[in-house]
Amino acid sequence: MKKAAIIGASGYSGEELVRLLLNHPHAELVAVTSRQYAGQTLAQVFPKFASHPRSETLHFTEPNAELLAKQADVVFLALPHGVAAEHALPLLDAGCIVIDLSADFRLRSAEVYKEFYAHDHPAPDLLDKAVYGLPEIYRDKIKKSVLIASPGCYPTSILLPLIPLLAAKLIQPAGIIADSLSGVSGAGRKAEVDYLFCECNESVRPYGVPKHRHLSEIEEQLSFAAGTVVIIQFTPHLIPVNRGISTTLYLAPEKSANAEKICACYKKAYGSEQFVRLLDGRNLPDTKNVIGTNVIEIAWRLDPRTGRLIVMSAEDNLVKGASGQAVQSMNLVCGFPETSGLV
Amino acid sequence: MKKAAIIGASGYSGEELVRLLLNHPHAELVAVTSRQYAGQTLAQVFPKFASHPRSETLHFTEPNAELLAKQADVVFLALPHGVAAEHALPLLDAGCIVIDLSADFRLRSAEVYKEFYAHDHPAPDLLDKAVYGLPEIYRDKIKKSVLIASPGCYPTSILLPLIPLLAAKLIQPAGIIADSLSGVSGAGRKAEVDYLFCECNESVRPYGVPKHRHLSEIEEQLSFAAGTVVIIQFTPHLIPVNRGISTTLYLAPEKSANAEKICACYKKAYGSEQFVRLLDGRNLPDTKNVIGTNVIEIAWRLDPRTGRLIVMSAEDNLVKGASGQAVQSMNLVCGFPETSGLV
Amino acid sequence: MKKAAIIGASGYSGEELVRLLLNHPHAELVAVTSRQYAGQTLAQVFPKFASHPRSETLHFTEPNAELLAKQADVVFLALPHGVAAEHALPLLDAGCIVIDLSADFRLRSAEVYKEFYAHDHPAPDLLDKAVYGLPEIYRDKIKKSVLIASPGCYPTSILLPLIPLLAAKLIQPAGIIADSLSGVSGAGRKAEVDYLFCECNESVRPYGVPKHRHLSEIEEQLSFAAGTVVIIQFTPHLIPVNRGISTTLYLAPEKSANAEKICACYKKAYGSEQFVRLLDGRNLPDTKNVIGTNVIEIAWRLDPRTGRLIVMSAEDNLVKGASGQAVQSMNLVCGFPETSGLV
Amino acid sequence: MKKAAIIGASGYSGEELVRLLLNHPHAELVAVTSRQYAGQTLAQVFPKFASHPRSETLHFTEPNAELLAKQADVVFLALPHGVAAEHALPLLDAGCIVIDLSADFRLRSAEVYKEFYAHDHPAPDLLDKAVYGLPEIYRDKIKKSVLIASPGCYPTSILLPLIPLLAAKLIQPAGIIADSLSGVSGAGRKAEVDYLFCECNESVRPYGVPKHRHLSEIEEQLSFAAGTVVIIQFTPHLIPVNRGISTTLYLAPEKSANAEKICACYKKAYGSEQFVRLLDGRNLPDTKNVIGTNVIEIAWRLDPRTGRLIVMSAEDNLVKGASGQAVQSMNLVCGFPETSGLV
Repeated sequence: MKKAAIIGASGYSGEELVRLLLNHPHAELVAVTSRQYAGQTLAQVFPKFASHPRSETLHFTEPNAELLAKQADVVFLALPHGVAAEHALPLLDAGCIVIDLSADFRLRSAEVYKEFYAHDHPAPDLLDKAVYGLPEIYRDKIKKSVLIASPGCYPTSILLPLIPLLAAKLIQPAGIIADSLSGVSGAGRKAEVDYLFCECNESVRPYGVPKHRHLSEIEEQLSFAAGTVVIIQFTPHLIPVNRGISTTLYLAPEKSANAEKICACYKKAYGSEQFVRLLDGRNLPDTKNVIGTNVIEIAWRLDPRTGRLIVMSAEDNLVKGASGQAVQSMNLVCGFPETSGLV
Repeated sequence: MKKAAIIGASGYSGEELVRLLLNHPHAELVAVTSRQYAGQTLAQVFPKFASHPRSETLHFTEPNAELLAKQADVVFLALPHGVAAEHALPLLDAGCIVIDLSADFRLRSAEVYKEFYAHDHPAPDLLDKAVYGLPEIYRDKIKKSVLIASPGCYPTSILLPLIPLLAAKLIQPAGIIADSLSGVSGAGRKAEVDYLFCECNESVRPYGVPKHRHLSEIEEQLSFAAGTVVIIQFTPHLIPVNRGISTTLYLAPEKSANAEKICACYKKAYGSEQFVRLLDGRNLPDTKNVIGTNVIEIAWRLDPRTGRLIVMSAEDNLVKGASGQAVQSMNLVCGFPETSGLV
Repeated sequence: MKKAAIIGASGYSGEELVRLLLNHPHAELVAVTSRQYAGQTLAQVFPKFASHPRSETLHFTEPNAELLAKQADVVFLALPHGVAAEHALPLLDAGCIVIDLSADFRLRSAEVYKEFYAHDHPAPDLLDKAVYGLPEIYRDKIKKSVLIASPGCYPTSILLPLIPLLAAKLIQPAGIIADSLSGVSGAGRKAEVDYLFCECNESVRPYGVPKHRHLSEIEEQLSFAAGTVVIIQFTPHLIPVNRGISTTLYLAPEKSANAEKICACYKKAYGSEQFVRLLDGRNLPDTKNVIGTNVIEIAWRLDPRTGRLIVMSAEDNLVKGASGQAVQSMNLVCGFPETSGLV
Repeated sequence: MKKAAIIGASGYSGEELVRLLLNHPHAELVAVTSRQYAGQTLAQVFPKFASHPRSETLHFTEPNAELLAKQADVVFLALPHGVAAEHALPLLDAGCIVIDLSADFRLRSAEVYKEFYAHDHPAPDLLDKAVYGLPEIYRDKIKKSVLIASPGCYPTSILLPLIPLLAAKLIQPAGIIADSLSGVSGAGRKAEVDYLFCECNESVRPYGVPKHRHLSEIEEQLSFAAGTVVIIQFTPHLIPVNRGISTTLYLAPEKSANAEKICACYKKAYGSEQFVRLLDGRNLPDTKNVIGTNVIEIAWRLDPRTGRLIVMSAEDNLVKGASGQAVQSMNLVCGFPETSGLV
């Protein structure tokens, strides 16, 4: 058993981490923090957890890295970018494993961070220590790391379908388009008019066009996979569901590519992965089939009319796109079975 | 043509007033105010009105009663309670007709106001001048009034079905229960976590039990109709739709009542009303049949097993429950056909 | 380990049973039937279960009671009323435990069955053998039964709050009103226009007024608890959520009742129940806090203005209102911990 | 005043036509047909129209082209493809103007029709007579036509943004991608499990990949505009809203193109169009701003990082994407103001 803490447990990712850790067979949730709810019990803040035996005894506290470092072996940071990095250093110094769900340690380059996040990186020295927490791609590195930068929700839905194809040189690294549709929880539990029920229900809208922040980590990871600089087109849309991301990728196959090779490539990459579901036959990804799970669905079609390869994915933005994937990384770094607490 | 202004035009009721007045054949919308959006055009604040010819020339301004009094014949107040009353006096003094959508002038008693709204009434001298703006009940008074207190959304859905039955002594005034379900726009365009998409979607919940503020005007009006003090049970629920109120009323028929008399009572009261739809046959009220209209649907069933009379209604909380009804009152007070701009 | 089968596994209750049994620590799902999908694998019919190791090997079959009796120890019937009873007899004769989610064995009286379901009871001799599967009320009987009639979704949301109050004579048995709001899955996976997305979304509507079929089992159970014949008023509404029932009960307290006694009554009845959450403080039931769980939330308010007791509940209609409760009964009858597979 | 009839008035497009024609200042709705509802009044089939004076006197009838030809000047066909064409010939022979909302007359080529619709064209001789009913593009032809093929919902959302750019040679005709998101009413009022509330709510999914039927008319029209054969990529998605299509187009600008020219091109094409709203500033299209209206919103962004032009549109699939556009064509062909009944 490892002891786990969550800094910033009152947002949607934090709440989902609470759910997963309360039911984890090898981890004990020992601390949750929230400036807003400090002093209240878990049951008071989240009535839905009130039936859990720990919900009356676990109190939200003010975030205090030193104190938490004494209580916990693993600390999850579910905080806004910029804020997360400040907590990481004292926790690492105290010997904790840090799993950060913000963008702070996802990039290798402090310059790119500044370009996309509009402020200096708060802890550039730590960037080299961090591993990008995409277990299907960086499993071995994650196992040995103490600072894991858990990927963003959109990036997960884009990178898992693309990396094997790029690495196998089955698609051209130029001209990639990712069109994504996200549920409203992706915007966080923020009291803003734009995310009120009546502003989102019966509404569909693109946003953040053409330069969404998640492009930075997507392109960095795709460039690693392709061995060359990759620039992509990315359009996110907000749609009226609580959870779920549906991504459609428009790709140009390399001349050597064909259906058989694409199929083999995906089977090799993900055939034995527990959390990647390759759809065959006539099925296409549907967010309702992955909600509440750590699974990403992937399907593809070669279009003989256009010559393009269309790859589609579906995931739960709060699970495989955030907290589930973070727990998957915890399982790896702690030596637990990778699916612990996730099935 | 009359000139109309809206103070507080950026909330949901205000926005709906804008929609109705922009398309009104006998009124011209000359001013809209909003502290938050002062300086912006209607098209900027509400892109959905951008195709209207006036949307580029009409600018939101700071609310200024004196200035508005010079511009407008009729002024709608779509403001929080307490704030609305402050604007009414100077507008009335300047000769404007005031139609207030807040609770400030709905009650005859300043004491009851204080009991339910927790502050002294800001303009108790005006209470006598105000008419409760339920046209089907107070049509003649509204025509002669200069201060119209437009009813609340829940009260409208409860009063219209009940008043004829009480007035005809077909139901007992004691023991009335009103169970209401409201769409989220009823909570207003407020940036609060409780009304975020993810907090309301896939959620159903009662609230404000047992003493919701709207009880004050409901009970006052029912008491007038019954000629005796009426105390009712009222339970509102929040449900994930943008618009619509569905109300179910549980009533004890007087011994003299029967199906024929109830039918005749409703036909007499509403048979020639344009905005009350009495359902017959097997139909029951459904909010989707009244959304966007000024119509309230009413159906009833006598239950031979329990002896109770069940009356059900459906309305659009922003139209018949707020802005449409306010325009209906404007039509009356200005001498326009009552359905102008509403069909 | 017990072997379990589901007859009629393609509807919403059946699908939820599949979910629960696939993850049950003491049960193995050995057979699923569906006339429509016979021959297909679980993964083909329900892509969301495709990551489970059994989803490729478990095939839907035609329902065949004799064959299933050889395969399974416990058989769940998730079938329409009338059809379910036909399967029960051969399964019981072959020594299976039968847990029926239809209405066929919920009533003690074949006459009442015929009154509400409009056809003769298909197996009246079995009525005496059946136990009403509400574990919090009939735990000991369920443990010894071989034929369990799992309650309806509305009845569960009404009976659990009412039975302790009636049994303790804290409320009057006359004049009870239950106003319920149900998500659309309650209507089943039926291809009917009334339940299309566009007919339900942005719609709220009462239906089945005033004599819904579920009244029969509600009133029979309430009469047992009260020791006298109980007739209630029940109004169901359809609301646009996938899952969840919110019920509001309007009750007349007996003169001896007060807040302290009501509190004590509920604490005594449910204080140590794992699946009943008594809300205190300011919280009211919210379906989003129980979705996907076997928990029912209950809160109450005494209204000093009307003298009434208002009791509110929230449950997931497919879990505590159907399949979760059925698994809870299986746990009891098989001697497993009552919460197995349900937390 | 012209007399109008609707054959197939019980689906979503038919219902929307009823709504528009009941309120049209220059048209009188004289007949509505539906095999299923023949004999019932408009009020019975659509309670939401019950307040209209004609709703009690207008009865649904069996479709009978000869009879309708005697009653009506203009006949709308809101029928499935293949069926619509059969009704067109007798109506045209009898001198009616026919406005067909099906796919039957949208293509110039009977071969392409067969390729995409999988059956021989039922009336190939009429193809030459038909005009593609996109008023902003074919206004003059529509005015003189007697057979108008009203465009599909997806095509409208794609063609209006693309045609001016292609005609002005500002974008390359090769490599166009259209990614579209549609509300569920686009699937029609069909009693199929796939479109049940619980199957669509909390679900997002692509479908019809890669060869949706609407490609045929999209590509034919784009080819006309470009003066060369255009093949595009098109991916539709189903999202949980009643109405609305949001389309994102990925385009390669020609070398001569720049922001100024694109802006000028759109201003020239649509600057004086009543139903095309070119968004400037920071706004992006949002379906909630066009729901219930005949307006299409268009915005665009040049991406300096990729060199691509991103064009986004939003429309109501049942109004500008179907029935509103059909009425717009009626207005043209009958010599009414083009916006009659549509604002």
